[in-house]
Amino acid sequence: MTDKLKRQLNFLSEADKMKNIFRQTRLADRSRRENDAEHSWHFALTAMTLHEYCKIGGVDIDRVIKMALVHDLVEIYAGDTFAYDVKGNESKEEREKESANRLFSLLPDEQMAEYRALWEEFEEMETPDAIFASAIDRLQSLHNIHLSGGYTWEKHKVSADKIYNRMKPVKTALPQLWEYVEYAVNEGIEKGYVKPEATK
Amino acid sequence: MTDKLKRQLNFLSEADKMKNIFRQTRLADRSRRENDAEHSWHFALTAMTLHEYCKIGGVDIDRVIKMALVHDLVEIYAGDTFAYDVKGNESKEEREKESANRLFSLLPDEQMAEYRALWEEFEEMETPDAIFASAIDRLQSLHNIHLSGGYTWEKHKVSADKIYNRMKPVKTALPQLWEYVEYAVNEGIEKGYVKPEATK
Repeated sequence: MTDKLKRQLNFLSEADKMKNIFRQTRLADRSRRENDAEHSWHFALTAMTLHEYCKIGGVDIDRVIKMALVHDLVEIYAGDTFAYDVKGNESKEEREKESANRLFSLLPDEQMAEYRALWEEFEEMETPDAIFASAIDRLQSLHNIHLSGGYTWEKHKVSADKIYNRMKPVKTALPQLWEYVEYAVNEGIEKGYVKPEATK
Repeated sequence: MTDKLKRQLNFLSEADKMKNIFRQTRLADRSRRENDAEHSWHFALTAMTLHEYCKIGGVDIDRVIKMALVHDLVEIYAGDTFAYDVKGNESKEEREKESANRLFSLLPDEQMAEYRALWEEFEEMETPDAIFASAIDRLQSLHNIHLSGGYTWEKHKVSADKIYNRMKPVKTALPQLWEYVEYAVNEGIEKGYVKPEATK
């Protein structure tokens, strides 16, 4: 085997650790937290299934799917940072950058550059592919939280304004899905697991 | 929301059950069995990473990735059938066909046809995309079993000839990876977790 192939197999072996990085979101049946490997798969399947609703021009669904597959790899060393964790998000960028240096450098140069660029594009959320990808990433989380009866929102006392703010890319990229976002949030308010008022 | 969109969201909700379908393969750290959602993600990432070694002409990597994302969905109702389970494999086709009828019919007609066709193509293993996908699917399993110190092979007393037989698509589609397959099997024989002789 070439040194190049050994590096790629080693990267794929390291990637296995995604199955042990747990998110705040739970499975629909509430039984346990979802991990990054499961989330990445569900994100990719959601992108593929809801692509027809995308209202941003110039989106390449095949690139978006690849973005979904690699977008959380840096969490292998940096850990998952909860979307509504103010303090955790202050250090997120630096932690993830260090992790990216470490993880992507396992790969041969060309592939290192390709995967890193996909991850950076996703994080910057400026290109059509990245905006659509972010919308799907966030929608998949909201969908799972809704299915699990709002477990994560209730546990972390998340308010409606924060959810709407986080879901902004859905409004931009998938306006037909916004009705679902509102439905999920309103149901949460009615059932008492989403705070109707902003919290400080 | 349109009825069509509701059906798609319902399908994506049902797909969450993949996270609770456990395979015989374990995580690299041996801590627990891998589930279908994790495997599908790792399969897609492996296809993307090792695509350059594919020696079959006419493979569309973007279609292969989509195939990876949907190839195990039928196991939501049919369950996982272990590759070396002779009895389980006798009823596999019928069980999975029934499951496919039930699962894919949750989707709107066009998408139902698309996802079902991708799954059927994968199962039939005749087109270039399906042969390459099968090779990667099996390689990902072998890699994880190797990383976990042969847990699954040892537990089920799997012999070298059965592993080589199962890995045939790797020889066809990824000949440069065959050396790795042999390395993994030989290490298993040396360490005693792969039976060197065929078993009845």
